[in-house]
Amino acid sequence: MSAAPLKEILALNRFDASRTEGFPEELAERVRRRSATFGASSVLFYEQPIEMVRAEGTYMYDADGRKYLDVYNNVPSVGHCHPRVVAAMAKQAAEINIHTRYLTKIVETYSERLLATYPEGLSNLVMTCTGSESNDLAMRIARIGTGAEGFIVTESAYHGNTALVTEISPSALKKRKPAPFVRTVPAPSGNDPAAVAASFAAHVEAAIADLRKEGYGTAALIVDSIFSSDGIYADPAGFLQPAVAAVRKAGGLFIADEVQPGFGRTGFNLWGFARHGVTPDIVTMGKPMGNGFPMSGVVTRPDLLQKFCEETGYFNTFGGNPVAAAAGLAVLDVIADEGLTENARDVGSYFADSLRNLKSRHVTIGAVRGAGLFIGLDFIGLEDGEPDTALSTHVINEMKKSGILIGAAGKYGATLKIRPPLCFSKADADHFTGVLSTILGNR
Amino acid sequence: MSAAPLKEILALNRFDASRTEGFPEELAERVRRRSATFGASSVLFYEQPIEMVRAEGTYMYDADGRKYLDVYNNVPSVGHCHPRVVAAMAKQAAEINIHTRYLTKIVETYSERLLATYPEGLSNLVMTCTGSESNDLAMRIARIGTGAEGFIVTESAYHGNTALVTEISPSALKKRKPAPFVRTVPAPSGNDPAAVAASFAAHVEAAIADLRKEGYGTAALIVDSIFSSDGIYADPAGFLQPAVAAVRKAGGLFIADEVQPGFGRTGFNLWGFARHGVTPDIVTMGKPMGNGFPMSGVVTRPDLLQKFCEETGYFNTFGGNPVAAAAGLAVLDVIADEGLTENARDVGSYFADSLRNLKSRHVTIGAVRGAGLFIGLDFIGLEDGEPDTALSTHVINEMKKSGILIGAAGKYGATLKIRPPLCFSKADADHFTGVLSTILGNR
Repeated sequence: MSAAPLKEILALNRFDASRTEGFPEELAERVRRRSATFGASSVLFYEQPIEMVRAEGTYMYDADGRKYLDVYNNVPSVGHCHPRVVAAMAKQAAEINIHTRYLTKIVETYSERLLATYPEGLSNLVMTCTGSESNDLAMRIARIGTGAEGFIVTESAYHGNTALVTEISPSALKKRKPAPFVRTVPAPSGNDPAAVAASFAAHVEAAIADLRKEGYGTAALIVDSIFSSDGIYADPAGFLQPAVAAVRKAGGLFIADEVQPGFGRTGFNLWGFARHGVTPDIVTMGKPMGNGFPMSGVVTRPDLLQKFCEETGYFNTFGGNPVAAAAGLAVLDVIADEGLTENARDVGSYFADSLRNLKSRHVTIGAVRGAGLFIGLDFIGLEDGEPDTALSTHVINEMKKSGILIGAAGKYGATLKIRPPLCFSKADADHFTGVLSTILGNR
Repeated sequence: MSAAPLKEILALNRFDASRTEGFPEELAERVRRRSATFGASSVLFYEQPIEMVRAEGTYMYDADGRKYLDVYNNVPSVGHCHPRVVAAMAKQAAEINIHTRYLTKIVETYSERLLATYPEGLSNLVMTCTGSESNDLAMRIARIGTGAEGFIVTESAYHGNTALVTEISPSALKKRKPAPFVRTVPAPSGNDPAAVAASFAAHVEAAIADLRKEGYGTAALIVDSIFSSDGIYADPAGFLQPAVAAVRKAGGLFIADEVQPGFGRTGFNLWGFARHGVTPDIVTMGKPMGNGFPMSGVVTRPDLLQKFCEETGYFNTFGGNPVAAAAGLAVLDVIADEGLTENARDVGSYFADSLRNLKSRHVTIGAVRGAGLFIGLDFIGLEDGEPDTALSTHVINEMKKSGILIGAAGKYGATLKIRPPLCFSKADADHFTGVLSTILGNR
């Protein structure tokens, strides 16, 4: 893994926020203020950043009153500022907000409701605050549970930001390779669906053999089951099975990182792993869990959690507080009552078909793939058919001018990452498709 | 660091939550439900746990309507369910709640307000979600900034729950010592105030020498500047200076963990390190920052953050969202408008004096020490003057029966950890002191 070239960073729509050249003075001043406090960590979207002031459903509004269709944000997953989630948080925050060393009814209710969505055996929950905390904890549970040290992840994986989790997030490392106990495998892609599973399993098996040879052993294969950072690879459903079997044969665990696909996004059921017909040993959750309230969780088997707790204390002050439970419960209710999993399936399928139809008019559109409301669309060069990072960057910035927010993914940042709130409608999809076609013109 | 004996765990008032013997049936059922979901990670306070349903100011209320004076919780630091914080969160959550890659005014306002409370040079802020995330990030910044690997912490330190931070949290490790790159030093205590600084510095110097010898070098000395987990050691203010000087001479950094002492608790200004007349290289914040909203932060020098960001990407999805900023801003406003730092100083000083006065009537009370509203009170054996863990446990459970919530700290769990919300009154202090005296009786 070498340093990401500048063009890749640009393609991912992330800009050093100390630039102010050419900005209107008021915006330049805002950017300077922000840069003065956030320093080198100030990264903003778009060549010219946007100040957002309001959001509702699938729309966000900037300081000038401009409206943007949000096709990017998966945290406000049941819709920006959903009134039921906001009301539930506000009510609970006014009543009591305390850690989990006292009993509070709403926390028990939420834990039971959430665990009821999981396959048998996955019956214990540890509540945390961020997806990073969940993956960090999952890695520790896996190491203590197996006695092995090694992890297998995909080449452009991103699993979070703690010291340990950064080691299994090659896409976050700028100047060096992941730690010696990590092996990367290519994302599961290919034109022959039947070969995808076998090829992915073969790479995982090679990684297992190498980890064994180097004395690390395999603690776990950890994947985002929709492979977001790699460029979104969802099909054929089931392709994970042989790789998971290989890991288990080697004494390792399978960790499903559901931070991206979880909570209905893939349109199958609540969980991305379910599409693949596998039951993980550990599942991690994050972003959409509280529709913006900072909450996350780890679900695992009681025997694994028991073994972990015998070795080390684990307490998360904010994790599992009653306000998180209230927000999380409202999210589950809204997903059920508004049929958002079904909406993700129906609108997602309609949306992907519409995008595929565009291919006949635009030769720069390569593969369109995904599941539910998580769709990847590759841009390819007119002449060479190779990933076209420049075009991806161009489209993202032009779409912003047309009032649509979208980002990129994949090794080259040449894949549109289409990941709107789950209340996205067919009319929203039509709007996106029409604008994309206009921007591409005769390309 | 060997495994913590059972008595220590009990003294810290943490009980395996699978026990239900002797509980009323309704409570037993609640505990079973909770244990079924949280599994081995279900830890509850008190021999017989409490179901809490409501909280306000310095009081919490259980399911039977019983009222408890809260002398333990430092997260709801400006008072449980403070209406200004709740209203600010609710208003912002209904308007917009998005990550930091768009500009939002309230996030900039909060960052500027918070940084204005820091000494010159500490001018950059990274917003995170938990104290653990802050300390994990601080350790990474220190390693990249110094090129060294080693950390120095106190013997019973607790700095959080990620894989890396657990290594510098000896009090969380049940069966093994911290990692090889960690050196522990005794908490800075002693009867001769003048000797405390020299003794602490000497231990730190020995740790530096050992880390050098073993090839790790010293990345940082990291301390909670009120030494909470060690048993609360605040005096004499300034004792940190020689140790910090020694670390800097060795090329290392000083990280002040303000998760416990921060936001006015010590009654000096907002920050515990300020009492010691030192300016840290990195400061981490957590618990009281959002009065229960999950938020935290790292403040550091621009040069250190710059160096870190050149090596690695760091993005925190929930960190620095507008709802966190709204909660954080309300907390700063309430601290200022209600004079809570001054209240911590005045009531804290009155409270500590009252507790010291109790010593003449109760020989089991050893040292009383602290700063502001963070006070440690040692229980000592009638005959041997040694830490009396059993008495501490007894007092904690008896106080609960009398409607007062309190916990323990220190290597032996024999120190009462007195750490109420900052709106604690002299009447609250009198109530606590009176009940404590009654429980101790003629001891």
